[in-house]
Amino acid sequence: MIQQFEIKLPAFKRGFHLVTRHITEKLDQLPETGLVNIFVHHTSAGLMINENADPSVRVDLESSFNHLVPERMSYYTHTMEGDDDMPAHIKSALAGVSLTIPVEDHRLKLGTWQGIFLCEFRDHAGSRKVTLTVYS
Amino acid sequence: MIQQFEIKLPAFKRGFHLVTRHITEKLDQLPETGLVNIFVHHTSAGLMINENADPSVRVDLESSFNHLVPERMSYYTHTMEGDDDMPAHIKSALAGVSLTIPVEDHRLKLGTWQGIFLCEFRDHAGSRKVTLTVYS
Amino acid sequence: MIQQFEIKLPAFKRGFHLVTRHITEKLDQLPETGLVNIFVHHTSAGLMINENADPSVRVDLESSFNHLVPERMSYYTHTMEGDDDMPAHIKSALAGVSLTIPVEDHRLKLGTWQGIFLCEFRDHAGSRKVTLTVYS
Repeated sequence: MIQQFEIKLPAFKRGFHLVTRHITEKLDQLPETGLVNIFVHHTSAGLMINENADPSVRVDLESSFNHLVPERMSYYTHTMEGDDDMPAHIKSALAGVSLTIPVEDHRLKLGTWQGIFLCEFRDHAGSRKVTLTVYS
Repeated sequence: MIQQFEIKLPAFKRGFHLVTRHITEKLDQLPETGLVNIFVHHTSAGLMINENADPSVRVDLESSFNHLVPERMSYYTHTMEGDDDMPAHIKSALAGVSLTIPVEDHRLKLGTWQGIFLCEFRDHAGSRKVTLTVYS
Repeated sequence: MIQQFEIKLPAFKRGFHLVTRHITEKLDQLPETGLVNIFVHHTSAGLMINENADPSVRVDLESSFNHLVPERMSYYTHTMEGDDDMPAHIKSALAGVSLTIPVEDHRLKLGTWQGIFLCEFRDHAGSRKVTLTVYS
């Protein structure tokens, strides 16, 4: 059985943002056993599972992604949409746009310290569209 | 219900290649709602969703992956198969080999600017084998 | 149809470890056609598909991930749990924690050279918990 929901996340500033609750509040009728796929429909954002407790991890992820993929590299040719644009596409490639998570006992089976992050790689992005697909 | 297809992509030169049409032409009977998994059976290639409109993004992804994972690093020990080989394995690790994409209204539900890329990390690779699994 | 198993991998030292057999020995009743999702419930480890034959690839992946994500960077603020901790979260973000693999003819349909790796990013981690979900 497949169920599908589309949600709009609130617009976030550039950075890594915990959205576990935004996702789970749409998934209040999960099956006993199954899988959930979460898919973000953009090429300058990403989805990630990472540490949910200490906000400093999210700060350091932002610094590290900026260090891995700097702006204004001389070899960038896709430069018309701003200094943050091409790096955003590369960071999205590294983070990925799709997560698949097991469901157990009607809940997302995340580890104790695992949260779902929206990775916002643009300086001034709007709301991001996400599709949730539940299969059981 | 599960359906599975194996396809051979054409041999591509090193770089990032838009293969959305190669995939969707094999998926002409998608369910109303579901998911599609795309899996490439190689360790020196990858699959990615990224910007489908401006080819300069694909050029810059190639430059950026080369910058992130240079050839001939002194610490490489797996060097028997050419300078492009070990970097290809590392790039494949970063890009990933498996994508899961929602299906809505009998079509892959990609964002407006999202395309499916084959990431070819070898200099002289042949055709790459891909398995498409549709579940509904 | 969905089946779900939880397994504990043995504690590994820091590095990339081939665990294909640890996974497949729990999956002795795979359907003829389907998909398997493998999910690790930790934020300082990852899962990856990469070259299964030559152990030097795993050595070079460890060197490369250390080069991409160095310890003791001046911009790290999450530093209370040791020099290996924040880099482990970043590496986990790059590798990912979830794999989806097709099943064909009652077996994981991996390429000839593809193996499943547990990526252990901590210096002194214990056993890692993994959930296997089979759907057909």
